[in-house]
Amino acid sequence: MVSTENAPVTRTKTSLTGIKPTGEPHLGNLIGAIEPAIAMAGENESLYFIADYHALTTARDPEQLHHWTRAVAATWLAAGLDPARTIFYKQSDVPETFELTWILSCITGKGLMNRAHAYKAARDANVTAGEEPDAGINMGTYNYPILMAVDILIMEADLVPVGRDQAQHVEIAADIAGSFNHVYGSGYRFRVPEAVIPAETTGHTLPGLDGRKMSKSYDNYIPLFLPAPKLRKLVRRIPTDSTPVEAPKDPDSSAVFQILAQFAADEVVADTRARLEAGGVGWGDLKNQLADVLEERLAPMRERYEELMEPGSDLDDVLAHGGEIARERARRVLGSVRSAIGIDR
Amino acid sequence: MVSTENAPVTRTKTSLTGIKPTGEPHLGNLIGAIEPAIAMAGENESLYFIADYHALTTARDPEQLHHWTRAVAATWLAAGLDPARTIFYKQSDVPETFELTWILSCITGKGLMNRAHAYKAARDANVTAGEEPDAGINMGTYNYPILMAVDILIMEADLVPVGRDQAQHVEIAADIAGSFNHVYGSGYRFRVPEAVIPAETTGHTLPGLDGRKMSKSYDNYIPLFLPAPKLRKLVRRIPTDSTPVEAPKDPDSSAVFQILAQFAADEVVADTRARLEAGGVGWGDLKNQLADVLEERLAPMRERYEELMEPGSDLDDVLAHGGEIARERARRVLGSVRSAIGIDR
Repeated sequence: MVSTENAPVTRTKTSLTGIKPTGEPHLGNLIGAIEPAIAMAGENESLYFIADYHALTTARDPEQLHHWTRAVAATWLAAGLDPARTIFYKQSDVPETFELTWILSCITGKGLMNRAHAYKAARDANVTAGEEPDAGINMGTYNYPILMAVDILIMEADLVPVGRDQAQHVEIAADIAGSFNHVYGSGYRFRVPEAVIPAETTGHTLPGLDGRKMSKSYDNYIPLFLPAPKLRKLVRRIPTDSTPVEAPKDPDSSAVFQILAQFAADEVVADTRARLEAGGVGWGDLKNQLADVLEERLAPMRERYEELMEPGSDLDDVLAHGGEIARERARRVLGSVRSAIGIDR
Repeated sequence: MVSTENAPVTRTKTSLTGIKPTGEPHLGNLIGAIEPAIAMAGENESLYFIADYHALTTARDPEQLHHWTRAVAATWLAAGLDPARTIFYKQSDVPETFELTWILSCITGKGLMNRAHAYKAARDANVTAGEEPDAGINMGTYNYPILMAVDILIMEADLVPVGRDQAQHVEIAADIAGSFNHVYGSGYRFRVPEAVIPAETTGHTLPGLDGRKMSKSYDNYIPLFLPAPKLRKLVRRIPTDSTPVEAPKDPDSSAVFQILAQFAADEVVADTRARLEAGGVGWGDLKNQLADVLEERLAPMRERYEELMEPGSDLDDVLAHGGEIARERARRVLGSVRSAIGIDR
């Protein structure tokens, strides 16, 4: 006789990814963050959310916050995020988040927030500049690790894929979950989350228009959804050296080639590498090739993005639907937490 | 012809009182806080709320938090708070509070929180004890002034009756309202609240069982709802001197007389004073008189309190009804704020 009673239960793990809508998505985001994150969906139960209330720690322009929230959601959908296989929602559609933020702030030591990297960096910068240590730092920024902990804990996520710089936030979430479980664990226990840091080899970075890493903060980026002529114009601005057309060239020291290598098919990349090393290909030719490759790859994505950004598209419905599912999970968790702490509605 | 178009509009002002459910109500609370606050209802539109989520900054026992929340609500109702003429609710029934707390934390400078008296006192005590400055201080305590600001602002209250020690919190609420109005005022403007500090003459304090001010922190209090024999027993414990029965006595240096003066009718107080000054009344007689006066005054209140604390009483319905009205106001304000900042649901 075979008993199934004690058979090992393999529970699907839940993975959560937050996306902060603070600016125009660019090629570097697509390669470094969006595509790897979308590729992970399907291995686990996956939740993705637009962290619009996180953006509020810096956003001050209501039109812009509204625009970037929709634009970033449209970008992820256009890039292939499948809302039928994932839960895709806006943080602001889950107001239970904020009640739980208050609850968990009551069991979070202030010392833990003092040690958070982002706050410490802002504080150190003030001290270096001869300012008051807390000058210009708002309480949203200071409290942010608690909000991020709640984003994770309220969805009972196990895994949080983050860059190395964000790993501390997941540790803080685990700490806060542990404190709650210690005090109120007989009533409800939070699942303790883990950071998943991508191996170095998968963390692709792209050079920007000035040769440094493509980044919003360097203002050296190529936006994802430029009209074709503007895209071509920007590609022409990528710096190259003065090696003449006939001379052999080192592909690996060329920003143009590095971008091409991320977007072209493998055999095209190998062929281009050989042609550059042989000599006879000018930088201008290479830039034209890159512009063509990008246009071919981005055109369908741009079309879908533009459809989604039209008034009356299904973007808002998709987000609203995801929001309902996410909110239902959050309601269940918050309800258990309220009973555990002695607050009932 | 008389035009009413430009007649001055006198808007009823709105007054808000928060009640923290952290322990057993005592005679000192009744005289010093509950009765003066109830007497003010009617002059303005009045809101009273049980700050159960504020209590969570220190409460760790779910049963106790639940019990004190109901007990304190029952006490105020038994003491005469009229839920038909006021809005009486629990903070936890207005979850919009916490979303607005996040929003306002994003425009609140950390420096403002550093200057809050309660936090500074806790920090100074740590430093004096040779501890880390933030040792044992949780983020609920540190963030509390923002929560209190939201309690006030989300109800669009004009007036907040508070003790002198709480006036800074109302100033912080006014500061935060000002910051929001400065940044987002074209979309929504918060009403800027004012503290109402009772004149010294109305701020009655009562001596406790050890002659010091009756207070939870001195553990020298007489609970409001003791059974009559226990009440009489506690009254007998109030310290007196050894002046013999026949000797004239100074009423104003007697804790027993001071309590009597707050609870007996004016002519009884005047008569007792005369008899004490004349001599021939012993402290034991005076204590018996006080016990009778208290029992007469408290018995009907105690009966109502016990009815309300029974399972199935109308206590929970009264609070739920007040909660719905309060929540409706909060929803309206939060909706306007969301539009103003660029977050839409």
